[in-house]
Amino acid sequence: MGLGIHSNMQKEVIAHEFKRIQEEICESISEVDGKALFVSDAWHRSDGGGGDTRVLQNGAILEKAGVNFSAVFGPVSDKMKQAFGLDSTEFYATGVSIVMHPENPFIPIIHMNIRYFELPGKKWWFGGGIDLSPIYVDENEAKYFHQQLKTTCDSFNVEYYPKFKKWADDYFYISHRNETRGIGGIFFDKLTGAETEKELIFNFVCGVGRTFCKTYSHIINSKRNTVFTKENQIWQSIRRSRYVEFNLLYDKGTKFGLDTNGRVESILMSMPPKAEWHYDYKPLAGSEEEFTLACLKKEKAWI
Amino acid sequence: MGLGIHSNMQKEVIAHEFKRIQEEICESISEVDGKALFVSDAWHRSDGGGGDTRVLQNGAILEKAGVNFSAVFGPVSDKMKQAFGLDSTEFYATGVSIVMHPENPFIPIIHMNIRYFELPGKKWWFGGGIDLSPIYVDENEAKYFHQQLKTTCDSFNVEYYPKFKKWADDYFYISHRNETRGIGGIFFDKLTGAETEKELIFNFVCGVGRTFCKTYSHIINSKRNTVFTKENQIWQSIRRSRYVEFNLLYDKGTKFGLDTNGRVESILMSMPPKAEWHYDYKPLAGSEEEFTLACLKKEKAWI
Repeated sequence: MGLGIHSNMQKEVIAHEFKRIQEEICESISEVDGKALFVSDAWHRSDGGGGDTRVLQNGAILEKAGVNFSAVFGPVSDKMKQAFGLDSTEFYATGVSIVMHPENPFIPIIHMNIRYFELPGKKWWFGGGIDLSPIYVDENEAKYFHQQLKTTCDSFNVEYYPKFKKWADDYFYISHRNETRGIGGIFFDKLTGAETEKELIFNFVCGVGRTFCKTYSHIINSKRNTVFTKENQIWQSIRRSRYVEFNLLYDKGTKFGLDTNGRVESILMSMPPKAEWHYDYKPLAGSEEEFTLACLKKEKAWI
Repeated sequence: MGLGIHSNMQKEVIAHEFKRIQEEICESISEVDGKALFVSDAWHRSDGGGGDTRVLQNGAILEKAGVNFSAVFGPVSDKMKQAFGLDSTEFYATGVSIVMHPENPFIPIIHMNIRYFELPGKKWWFGGGIDLSPIYVDENEAKYFHQQLKTTCDSFNVEYYPKFKKWADDYFYISHRNETRGIGGIFFDKLTGAETEKELIFNFVCGVGRTFCKTYSHIINSKRNTVFTKENQIWQSIRRSRYVEFNLLYDKGTKFGLDTNGRVESILMSMPPKAEWHYDYKPLAGSEEEFTLACLKKEKAWI
């Protein structure tokens, strides 16, 4: 099948490498967890393609973690045309999408996604991002996290980090609460270029995927023995409810998945295992919870 | 301020009666609960109007219950024009909105809403509905509930119940799960007519509001002593997560509230106190949970 464009970076090669990244992540994260393994759920999409959803539940560290790989294709529906402005009859999309909810409230929730999109014969682009949602903001951890992302970005293009960091602040924003989902990270979309640049962009995207593991493993290991209380867990449940609000009200990936009749359990694996809504909850003055809330603002320079 | 239309049913009279219905409900529901009282939170909307949100938490029966009254007005924003097709510069809206989450998984979640909307000098309409979301479907209870609604409807118009029952089936539908939120009830919108019919429609809407109390009190009292297990509570948390999905993904009232910069805590008081998401949860064959899921289908005749 010809794409109408000449490139060594065929979509099959991209999907293959994304699948490998999924496997690397599952292997090293279950090693860090030390107790539970990922269970694989391979699925088929009736309109074309499918995926492999890997979920770990009730681990020693991770209460719920999902690492989803998918490669889907087929006709562009009217709903997709309207919602995403896709001017094509066919599409191809492959990606890895991750959300991890640790049990210990001192270990942050993390999300990572890398994706490739193609309108065959017309255009292609990459997208992705990583963002960290601490229940309790730790400034050293935030600095470390952003520094890791900056290092990955800088090795490809020094303009990437400031640009993609701002994009994450704008994207991971819970507007009705006037707060960010967490301390941000990087986010980018529609990253494209000439055919000769495709491999470089692809390498950057894979670099983002591979930054995830070492960074999150380090964060887990630095906090895994931190003692927590019932009160810490309640605050975690409240922060998780904000995560739910973001994903169901604003997240474009969730919307795209549900609008394209994607596999519901794979899309909603991002939901926290437990969440709580308390009416008009306000943290105590001077508390760590209040400090965290005050940090959840856009355009905070963590480095 | 002239409305440009002649009617005894001024919006102030409607708002006043809605406020009274809120008070009646809070009084009788806290009596049924027997332990906790509603706490009142009066609020002001910067663009015009305000409300009184009453919330009861950690009662003997009700883990979380909200009874919200509001009367808001002001300019129609561009966002409202786009999202709701309002062809006017000014609007007025008043209503009572209720969601109750009992602690005992054998007592269903309930929702009720009555509302009046006016584009001053142009048109007016009423809307409303009641629906029941049992964690465990009890066919006798479902029959009783629908019969109460039918009786209220029939005393005004025999066409109302079948029409509004179907509307509820279509409205309270979680399309990505292919299941209804609960056993439905009634739902109606844009109920309008000649000025001479306004009082009759208003009386019907108040009748719906007043059907809520006696019906839900009866349901609570028939189930309040039913013993439940940890497993029943887990299933309750899963059903509550579906309630969250509906409210954040599909509910027009929630969307309208957030889009019009409504008071977030009053809009999201409908969220359950606790919810759980388990990856790919499937009830055991032959279980009560499986029976409930099988009942959550559209167009089931409960009477």
